[in-house]
Amino acid sequence: MTTMDAVRDRILSHSLGLVSARGLSALSIGDLARDLHLSRSGLMAHFSDKDALQLGVVEKAATLFVYEVVEAGSSAPAGEKRLRTLFARWLTWSRNPRLKGGCPFVHASAESDSLPVDVRAKLNAFLDGWSETLQNSIEDAKIAGELAPDTDASQVVFELYGLYLSHHFWHWSMKDRLAQERTQRAFERLLAASRG
Amino acid sequence: MTTMDAVRDRILSHSLGLVSARGLSALSIGDLARDLHLSRSGLMAHFSDKDALQLGVVEKAATLFVYEVVEAGSSAPAGEKRLRTLFARWLTWSRNPRLKGGCPFVHASAESDSLPVDVRAKLNAFLDGWSETLQNSIEDAKIAGELAPDTDASQVVFELYGLYLSHHFWHWSMKDRLAQERTQRAFERLLAASRG
Repeated sequence: MTTMDAVRDRILSHSLGLVSARGLSALSIGDLARDLHLSRSGLMAHFSDKDALQLGVVEKAATLFVYEVVEAGSSAPAGEKRLRTLFARWLTWSRNPRLKGGCPFVHASAESDSLPVDVRAKLNAFLDGWSETLQNSIEDAKIAGELAPDTDASQVVFELYGLYLSHHFWHWSMKDRLAQERTQRAFERLLAASRG
Repeated sequence: MTTMDAVRDRILSHSLGLVSARGLSALSIGDLARDLHLSRSGLMAHFSDKDALQLGVVEKAATLFVYEVVEAGSSAPAGEKRLRTLFARWLTWSRNPRLKGGCPFVHASAESDSLPVDVRAKLNAFLDGWSETLQNSIEDAKIAGELAPDTDASQVVFELYGLYLSHHFWHWSMKDRLAQERTQRAFERLLAASRG
């Protein structure tokens, strides 16, 4: 890693922590320069404006997510086992203490209407990809006979997002210690309802 | 309503629209004064600082919510009917076009860790009250024999928040036209699983 790359990475890592607590809109080049003891122009050598910085953070979060969630899931056998691994890793991702206030994608989606078009496009492409990964694992579980053949995979994906968002809300906003346990119980009920 | 009250109300209504799109942290006395053609000092005669303004917005949102959701629900017969009415009104609330980017409580909860202590306390008191209203209607449905006596009401409340947040995410962030239909289907499945 060159020095240039190392600085870029330090900016993005710090930004990701901020976005996890306050969203993409609250990112400010001035604040970042101060936090990281960089000059404003030094920071702008890496990110010419806020838009470029927001894009960089979404890319960084997506790369980490693929590494920590998607790839870990792909190493599990296709079907229900993979679905379970993906869901478990997804929850673990959102509880990562490095993400100071939860999942950056939850915060970014909540403000998506006020984001620049290209940032929103990148965010939505990521979310579409993640939905497809979940959907594929449900289809695999149907083929393997682990879920009923008439299971509506899009509906299950919709409800999995609900469980994830509910966990996020109760864990981060309400500090509910039972959040994970309740989420797991709801997940088992969702799978049970989708069996033959 | 005095002129003072009318101005105060205009400030809060405009603020509520902004909070519904960008959260409480993004509120700024300077921006508001500009939007509403008020002097900064004129605005500060109503709200001495950002903290007071945020408190005012949370109170205003809670008052509207009680009127549009809770009271409408209370006019339905206790039990499953009331639960259905409360849930339907809750969804309608989040789709209100006056709330430009969805439910202000969803945005406020996502940023709750970075809110002032008193604002967070007011927000949490409101959410606790709403959870209790839902929980009571579930308990009533158990007493009426509409739901199984061993139904874990807190778990159902947890999952109802999940459906609400999922609907909010798919409707507002992903512009999914099926959001309401899918939410309704998941709601029916949740009730069905809670019957005897």
